[in-house]
Amino acid sequence: MLKAAVTIHDVAKAAGVSIGTVSKVLNNQGRFTEETRIRVRQSAESLRFQPNALAQSLHQKRSYTVGLVSRDSFGRFSLPLLEGIENALDPARMAVFVCKPTDDPVHERRHIESLMAKRVDGLIVTSRRTDKRPPVDLAGTSMPVVYAYAQPEGSEAVCVLPDDRGGGQLAGQHLLCLGRTALAHVTGPEHFTAVRERRQGFEEALREAGRSLDPDWYLSGPWSEAWGHEAVGRLLEHGPRFDAIFCGSDQIARGVADALRERGLRVPEDVALVGYDNWDIIAAATRPPLTTIDPCLETLGQQAASCLLAMIAGAEATVPRVIRHPCRLVVRQSCGGEALL
Amino acid sequence: MLKAAVTIHDVAKAAGVSIGTVSKVLNNQGRFTEETRIRVRQSAESLRFQPNALAQSLHQKRSYTVGLVSRDSFGRFSLPLLEGIENALDPARMAVFVCKPTDDPVHERRHIESLMAKRVDGLIVTSRRTDKRPPVDLAGTSMPVVYAYAQPEGSEAVCVLPDDRGGGQLAGQHLLCLGRTALAHVTGPEHFTAVRERRQGFEEALREAGRSLDPDWYLSGPWSEAWGHEAVGRLLEHGPRFDAIFCGSDQIARGVADALRERGLRVPEDVALVGYDNWDIIAAATRPPLTTIDPCLETLGQQAASCLLAMIAGAEATVPRVIRHPCRLVVRQSCGGEALL
Repeated sequence: MLKAAVTIHDVAKAAGVSIGTVSKVLNNQGRFTEETRIRVRQSAESLRFQPNALAQSLHQKRSYTVGLVSRDSFGRFSLPLLEGIENALDPARMAVFVCKPTDDPVHERRHIESLMAKRVDGLIVTSRRTDKRPPVDLAGTSMPVVYAYAQPEGSEAVCVLPDDRGGGQLAGQHLLCLGRTALAHVTGPEHFTAVRERRQGFEEALREAGRSLDPDWYLSGPWSEAWGHEAVGRLLEHGPRFDAIFCGSDQIARGVADALRERGLRVPEDVALVGYDNWDIIAAATRPPLTTIDPCLETLGQQAASCLLAMIAGAEATVPRVIRHPCRLVVRQSCGGEALL
Repeated sequence: MLKAAVTIHDVAKAAGVSIGTVSKVLNNQGRFTEETRIRVRQSAESLRFQPNALAQSLHQKRSYTVGLVSRDSFGRFSLPLLEGIENALDPARMAVFVCKPTDDPVHERRHIESLMAKRVDGLIVTSRRTDKRPPVDLAGTSMPVVYAYAQPEGSEAVCVLPDDRGGGQLAGQHLLCLGRTALAHVTGPEHFTAVRERRQGFEEALREAGRSLDPDWYLSGPWSEAWGHEAVGRLLEHGPRFDAIFCGSDQIARGVADALRERGLRVPEDVALVGYDNWDIIAAATRPPLTTIDPCLETLGQQAASCLLAMIAGAEATVPRVIRHPCRLVVRQSCGGEALL
């Protein structure tokens, strides 16, 4: 026979004291004999008593909960973010409420109202892309909010974004260091901020080396393997003079790798390849496995949650407004540079 | 200047009534004049008052929250499950707490204790595989629990599992219906329950058609593209006499498809292929795109959450103990059967 949750009354009865005494002993308050304190603690432990966190939250005006509002259908980006957020919040004994992701502002507002009614201590807002979005509507009240892999337009809110420009730069520098001189760039749709920023960083690296990106060797298209495949055909219309391709995503890079192999070009001997995302399932399965840029989403989520914890603790002034989280170069075999490491 | 959350006191002050009156009017209790009721509601609305859900929860002994305990690092399986769980809970205005996934029983117990302290109305326990696991430790108390894509050993708990045997059967039947007669099976490690169940269903379909699985054509190995690639070499040691391969995962099927193409065998003309998982990123990008079995994890999650809602509502007796959620055949181009649909 299962029993209902153990209450403070059960502990008081077992220890032969009042519930006020139990409450004070467990909260390290009041003055009691050592014997009473031990008896209360032992009773609570043997009954496996759990203090009612709801009652504590009402009392402390803190719920030890955080709401996660997402526009990404639990997809590629929110996963590692969530993992990082949990890594930061778990040691602080904070729990995360997740809401059904939605692009509909009416639904989003309803979710936020429901989180506010649950008296969450703060919000993390995330998205499937880093482009600007309207800020969340807090009905005029104050509440710590951090945007992670998302940025609000016309707002002073704290946001943590991947350093996509730095990522593009890393890719360019790596290829140039390996002695490649004719660099192409096959990437995603230009209306993505990330596409423009990655290209910008890549061109900066070329410029620093006294080079520039040949317009014939810059191709923008959909975020897909099929596009990578097709882009190789387009690049080859100008002859196989390029010796490296920086791809805007691992999926594009995988299509590029397959198409090069089918046309008899060897990776990395003839053409070095750099991907973007370090999406294991794609990057590690490509032949050869992809050297790629990792936007470090897990540590980005961790940093966002740490900022939120600081804000909840009242240290908002110490938190910078816009944080660019650095990317990391992950060397596999598609550039042939692994022997140098 | 941001203001703190609006309280019931603010509403009472604005409407010129007591907080007791506000509480009763908003909960449709007590007897008041139409004029008072309208004034209270208008004050609440204009101040965008949110009742304190914590206080309501304490009062109603229900928190309208559910905890999700996972052993899958927010991976491939828990994502669509979470999506389905949200689909079922959102209309019931229930929110989901997620915990950092862990395989460590001590951490898991700490998470469950913390969820119990938050007085969640129920728990959903999920995993990265369907094999039996120890039941969660509820410290002897009663609480509605549903296992989704997970099953507890030696327990009468409710669990919702994919019908992997039915999935294997679907794959076999589809290939036989298309006139294939020499069927091979390349799958994952045999210590996975799912591997054994899929094979069982596949063999049942063969048996019904008066055939059996040739032991030379059954290959078990890791869950990877590389294994699919390697398995083709092993199958061909016995000559290219097979005309169809049922693969235990889309990743294995993708490796198989690449290896067949590289050896000059055409899919589907020479060899028809069926995958498993309907993992879009793999299945749709394979050349040709994979016909595959979809375990329908999203609706599985939805069904698990619906069972939990019924249990929370006190209708536990109406909920079956073990639910096998059906799989679905998704026809793309790797079997050549799409013209028949």
